[in-house]
Amino acid sequence: MTYCLGIITSTGLVMAADSRTNAGVDYISSYKKLFDFSIAGERALFLCTSGNLAVTQAAITLMARDIKTAAEPNLHSLTNLYDVARYIGSKLRALQLEDREWLEKDKIDCSCNILLGGQICGEEPGLYLIYSQGNFIQASKETPFLQIGETKYGKPILDRILNFDTPLQAAAKCALLSIDSTMKSNISVGPPINLVMYEIDSFKVRYELKLKIGAPYLRKIRTLWEISLNQAFERMPDIDWEHYLELPDERTTED
Amino acid sequence: MTYCLGIITSTGLVMAADSRTNAGVDYISSYKKLFDFSIAGERALFLCTSGNLAVTQAAITLMARDIKTAAEPNLHSLTNLYDVARYIGSKLRALQLEDREWLEKDKIDCSCNILLGGQICGEEPGLYLIYSQGNFIQASKETPFLQIGETKYGKPILDRILNFDTPLQAAAKCALLSIDSTMKSNISVGPPINLVMYEIDSFKVRYELKLKIGAPYLRKIRTLWEISLNQAFERMPDIDWEHYLELPDERTTED
Repeated sequence: MTYCLGIITSTGLVMAADSRTNAGVDYISSYKKLFDFSIAGERALFLCTSGNLAVTQAAITLMARDIKTAAEPNLHSLTNLYDVARYIGSKLRALQLEDREWLEKDKIDCSCNILLGGQICGEEPGLYLIYSQGNFIQASKETPFLQIGETKYGKPILDRILNFDTPLQAAAKCALLSIDSTMKSNISVGPPINLVMYEIDSFKVRYELKLKIGAPYLRKIRTLWEISLNQAFERMPDIDWEHYLELPDERTTED
Repeated sequence: MTYCLGIITSTGLVMAADSRTNAGVDYISSYKKLFDFSIAGERALFLCTSGNLAVTQAAITLMARDIKTAAEPNLHSLTNLYDVARYIGSKLRALQLEDREWLEKDKIDCSCNILLGGQICGEEPGLYLIYSQGNFIQASKETPFLQIGETKYGKPILDRILNFDTPLQAAAKCALLSIDSTMKSNISVGPPINLVMYEIDSFKVRYELKLKIGAPYLRKIRTLWEISLNQAFERMPDIDWEHYLELPDERTTED
């Protein structure tokens, strides 16, 4: 499994991904799932991938090759994010066309998702979720984050902490906590965690990190978060059972 | 969707369920999913259901009828929880045998799950999760909670707060917060919430409640929890970007 997360705020973008891949519980390995196709001074482009690893690796390879061979269009030549998302979708469609029939013979799921976040000079920053089918949706002020992979465990914290006006450093912290919550509840999501924080109009990757297993910061936030949650829990008022007693006519006993 | 949760601790049991059922987003209704088959002084028996509503309603109806007609075995005559779980499983199997073929013709999912929690006089309390297939697993000291339905959003809080020695009142509070987290992240889980707290060896349902939409206690814990989470988040240390800078050789840019 995988968990990747993109956040867009009024001041920038955060992209984060775990690195665990598994085909069954007995074949677990690490693959980077956050890819940086930025050009300093001109464009910031980050991709996160989830789903069938063969498909996403192939897509990344083909896109990197297009840049290298200057085949048009490519991630470095396209002039706006909408077209970049379309281009990524077209790569996924081409791969499905080639491989799907063979995978389906053995009932192998060839679905995958890609998060695209970035900004191209002269344009607003944007965050997209591209589906297996090649179509996509875009994050908005109302829904400032998009997730792919094992999304549910890490969503409650985002729902409660994040909004479009959250400071960028706080959004990055929130992304790490969201991934940490997921790792705690699902062993198929695991470190290293890759994280990028991009400041709007900087066109430069200034904040980028990789948290390996046992990284002190990761341990620190996990411990602190657990202590804080437990303290918060202690402070919650007890249940007032009398007040909310269920009425007898609503019971469903023996009939 | 549905979210039900059972917790077993050293001092008792907590069973909780939301009440929302949906067949698509345009057909949402409320059904009770927590059923009490206890006999005061002799046995405490609580069932929570998720999955195909037609199947679970039929199972509950058949089990209630067995009690009424004194057909053997039934929920009031079986003398231990293992046999009760087997009996419930047999009802699910009988229904699958009758209905499955017809549901599959229209690709309707007939799967469901049932949580069984309780205690029969002379026996230890127990908590079981019964699968569609009629087999089941049991909660243990190491894994003191079992969930059915939309389980993921509400799991992180359980993973971080609960263990077998958690006081029973705290376990009940934790169950409510787990359901509230799920309601916040998934609109297909919703109130009223039914909650039962059973004290070991009491053979009496002393703590039972129903929290309807807008119940002040529910509003209070949601607000307090959100405030506490945000305060805890504020206290988390900032990311030390310098220290965890990704090494250049690990970057995957353009090749």
